[in-house]
Amino acid sequence: MPRLKIGVLVSGSGTNLQSMIDSTKSGEINGEIAVVISDKEDAYGLERARANGINAVFVNAKRHENRTAFNDEIVSVLKKHGVVLVVLAGYLKILSPEFIGEYRNKIINIHPSLIPSFCGKGYYGLRVHEAVIEYGAKITGATVHFVDEEADAGPIILQEAVEVYWDDTPEVLQQRVLKIEHRLLPAAVKYYCDGRIETDGRKVKIREE
Amino acid sequence: MPRLKIGVLVSGSGTNLQSMIDSTKSGEINGEIAVVISDKEDAYGLERARANGINAVFVNAKRHENRTAFNDEIVSVLKKHGVVLVVLAGYLKILSPEFIGEYRNKIINIHPSLIPSFCGKGYYGLRVHEAVIEYGAKITGATVHFVDEEADAGPIILQEAVEVYWDDTPEVLQQRVLKIEHRLLPAAVKYYCDGRIETDGRKVKIREE
Repeated sequence: MPRLKIGVLVSGSGTNLQSMIDSTKSGEINGEIAVVISDKEDAYGLERARANGINAVFVNAKRHENRTAFNDEIVSVLKKHGVVLVVLAGYLKILSPEFIGEYRNKIINIHPSLIPSFCGKGYYGLRVHEAVIEYGAKITGATVHFVDEEADAGPIILQEAVEVYWDDTPEVLQQRVLKIEHRLLPAAVKYYCDGRIETDGRKVKIREE
Repeated sequence: MPRLKIGVLVSGSGTNLQSMIDSTKSGEINGEIAVVISDKEDAYGLERARANGINAVFVNAKRHENRTAFNDEIVSVLKKHGVVLVVLAGYLKILSPEFIGEYRNKIINIHPSLIPSFCGKGYYGLRVHEAVIEYGAKITGATVHFVDEEADAGPIILQEAVEVYWDDTPEVLQQRVLKIEHRLLPAAVKYYCDGRIETDGRKVKIREE
């Protein structure tokens, strides 16, 4: 099978991007990262891309009149690099409906909780873990899912749980969840690139090899 | 320490009641079940109680004008038997505010999902597992929590996760979750009876022995 071309969008340091870089380099994922795009010029994720010889592109939202035009530019960069699978690895902006339509069921996101808990508007980054601790939940986790028009609501590909401890700070909990994220995201992308993911409405089946 | 007197409320077959009977008989829980109450005359839970020499009381909602009066009768049965801890083991009616006020932070419920997912109004019994499967969640679990005025919303004592498989039926998933429930509920009641539970707002700490 040919190696699928993957585009990764990041807003931050991109530790999830790093896990993808490692898994594509090692050949575990039958795909290559064709381009990394960020909405932040100084995102460390762009640095990681360059350090690994991957195209790194900053797309400036301020140069566009609205979200649609900004997203159109991202899509055109993805297309230019032949991207067929988009991975959001800590990308914080909402995608336009046009973007989602262009890559329907071909956009994968990772969220640091067990969806449908602690997700949706306002739940990103450390805020997710703050909310989990404030709520007093004893279990949280991470979710890899397809992206649709609603925030954090598309079909779930993989989930894994971790314990929350009494004396956790949001930062400590975030590190524990990140360990799972760094395993789940490459696993989901691997399954995708191997053609092993079947969807039936909201239900996602991972076919045996 | 004296053995705490526990009252258990059931609406159904009471497999969670059975796990409590076993754990009190074995001495693992430093408490005794003083009375089992049901809102259903033919609840098999009442049968289990009688078979184990435990007082079994049917309280008939139809003999009362409203929820408050019905709940008042339950509270008076609990008081008559010296109950200081109330356990809801598959009890499907909503408690009155007066009942909750009378036993504040002394009522423990078990819910067959990872709260705050798949809980609240309409989520009981098999419906919880149907919703989990329909949503396409890959992880679910069980939650033991204190009861407050909102449905399934009090401070969480214990949670444990289980996997959802692609080909699960609600019935199969229910059985997998029940196995956890039968471990979690007696564990939480044991911690309570041993005086090891500390609450701070919504956060619950289980003290080391």
